[in-house]
Amino acid sequence: MNNSKPHAIGLDIGGTTITGAIINKTGDILEKISIDTNPETCPDEVLERVYRMIDALLDNSNVPIDEIAGIGVAAAGVIDSKEKVIVFANNLGWRNVPIGKLLGDRFDFPVKLTNDANAAAVAEWIWGEGRGCQNMIYITVSTGIGSGIISGGRMITGSDDSGGEFGHISINPDGPQCLCGNRGCIERYASGTAIAERVQSQLEDGPHRKTFFGYEKASLLTSEIVGKAAEHGDELALSAFKEAGFYLGIGMTNLINLFNPEVIILGGGVMKAQHFMLPTIKETINERGIAALTKRVQVSISYLEQEGGVLGGAGLFFIDQPSLTNNLSYI
Amino acid sequence: MNNSKPHAIGLDIGGTTITGAIINKTGDILEKISIDTNPETCPDEVLERVYRMIDALLDNSNVPIDEIAGIGVAAAGVIDSKEKVIVFANNLGWRNVPIGKLLGDRFDFPVKLTNDANAAAVAEWIWGEGRGCQNMIYITVSTGIGSGIISGGRMITGSDDSGGEFGHISINPDGPQCLCGNRGCIERYASGTAIAERVQSQLEDGPHRKTFFGYEKASLLTSEIVGKAAEHGDELALSAFKEAGFYLGIGMTNLINLFNPEVIILGGGVMKAQHFMLPTIKETINERGIAALTKRVQVSISYLEQEGGVLGGAGLFFIDQPSLTNNLSYI
Repeated sequence: MNNSKPHAIGLDIGGTTITGAIINKTGDILEKISIDTNPETCPDEVLERVYRMIDALLDNSNVPIDEIAGIGVAAAGVIDSKEKVIVFANNLGWRNVPIGKLLGDRFDFPVKLTNDANAAAVAEWIWGEGRGCQNMIYITVSTGIGSGIISGGRMITGSDDSGGEFGHISINPDGPQCLCGNRGCIERYASGTAIAERVQSQLEDGPHRKTFFGYEKASLLTSEIVGKAAEHGDELALSAFKEAGFYLGIGMTNLINLFNPEVIILGGGVMKAQHFMLPTIKETINERGIAALTKRVQVSISYLEQEGGVLGGAGLFFIDQPSLTNNLSYI
Repeated sequence: MNNSKPHAIGLDIGGTTITGAIINKTGDILEKISIDTNPETCPDEVLERVYRMIDALLDNSNVPIDEIAGIGVAAAGVIDSKEKVIVFANNLGWRNVPIGKLLGDRFDFPVKLTNDANAAAVAEWIWGEGRGCQNMIYITVSTGIGSGIISGGRMITGSDDSGGEFGHISINPDGPQCLCGNRGCIERYASGTAIAERVQSQLEDGPHRKTFFGYEKASLLTSEIVGKAAEHGDELALSAFKEAGFYLGIGMTNLINLFNPEVIILGGGVMKAQHFMLPTIKETINERGIAALTKRVQVSISYLEQEGGVLGGAGLFFIDQPSLTNNLSYI
């Protein structure tokens, strides 16, 4: 925590909601405002609402301007952290939005930008389950799968800030085709999308047809619905989560063998169904991993939840890692 | 290169040969001596010969004692880098040999210890194909597969110095059993052992029986013999290397997605057959990888070869990474 200014603004730009918050070095959220993104409006209009939100945050809080280190932005998509440009964000429909320059022109603060998984990892590292660790991995399991990796007390960014693509680790070269161009990516086995698809295909093909939680239109299923079904004890739903847990465990064992971490933290919407997955995840790691490496790994669930984005954005000003904001980032 | 003393001694302790060398910061080998390990003699006897070798290196060279930063040891096996103990080295039959203390008592030099793959990576990083890179991966393909990974200008060591187990990344949870406890590890598909086994099983089962390079006893095959057969154009041998290249490419794509490196350097005995593998490796990476990440990765062959161990051992004194020698190491 190298910055002398004790506060920072975190900004989490999502496809549905944009959240801004003023955060201190202890990780307290002093002020927080969320607005709808309405991505169908043009970026300028969205940003105008963001500016007003930041104005309101500053007005509402008692924090003097000169105690704010800067604005740290977390966004999904292809990010150029060096130039602070959102190169392409599918969930926003944005292309080449120079958010660093725009925010820097409007407010007289330094701006930092990183992708959402890295931001969540930073938040866990400073204030969450990775506190005090030199080696930790944050994995978000949602419609896709992403990760932020801290190794030896530094974020893995790679040469273009594009490292940490855990979702696109292939665990089967003959597996299902992934949009990334590879086959058998973890994301195709263990993401929310994969869980829903697994149940869908079994509803269509298998003996479970019409017996699944009252749903007949398999195509409408989401992992959230599968989660509800699992809570009602539906066997098909339970086995879908168990299978996803197995593949996550396989992927996490690979990460353990590469990074030898102290803790792996699981977050993202799908982890709401943690109790259906965690036993299988841990069992798989214990069965498949090298004992010398697995015995000390703690598998935790993120409790920062939706606040990982704003916390991690602000946290960029509280860690000492130039490389995090020096390069091009790719989700 | 933070050490003011311009020379260091590198010591590469292998199961067949032990090599010692005096190396300067430019990577020149000023003196080099190799002796047979004769691991059937007790560690004390082996070390006595090592001491005499180091004496001879010092006598033969014109380097003043006070210009030598220390002795950097590279060894295979389970290494405790912090305590500088070779915990278990299968190729030597050594258990709990406190080589740091022993060498430190005999010679008045600081001693550092790391595993052989990490040492080779350090050598490539300072003087080889990874020169000037902040993100590079060294992979050794031999009877087994190991790696040393530099990310953001630092060696990935993990919490117990046990990271970088590329050989034990599973690319098929239902694949062949590996000694590490996992299934479908890269090592089971692309190591020298795997290449020889692939040809063996096809000789035993397939139509190639008795046609392979004159060999009838499949059980005697090694990847070296397969390499010679490939040079004679044997189809079975060529396809075995091609298949190994495919799986290496799959594993390397995984590494690229995680580490976003500038260069991956391949070394180890099996890479003598590089011309039978490299086209498939590169093709697989290009087909399977995310273009934004693969387009800038250079795949190179190590030209430091057997000298990677002594160079990397000495190189430990020429890089600034405390964590490399702070922790427990596991091959």
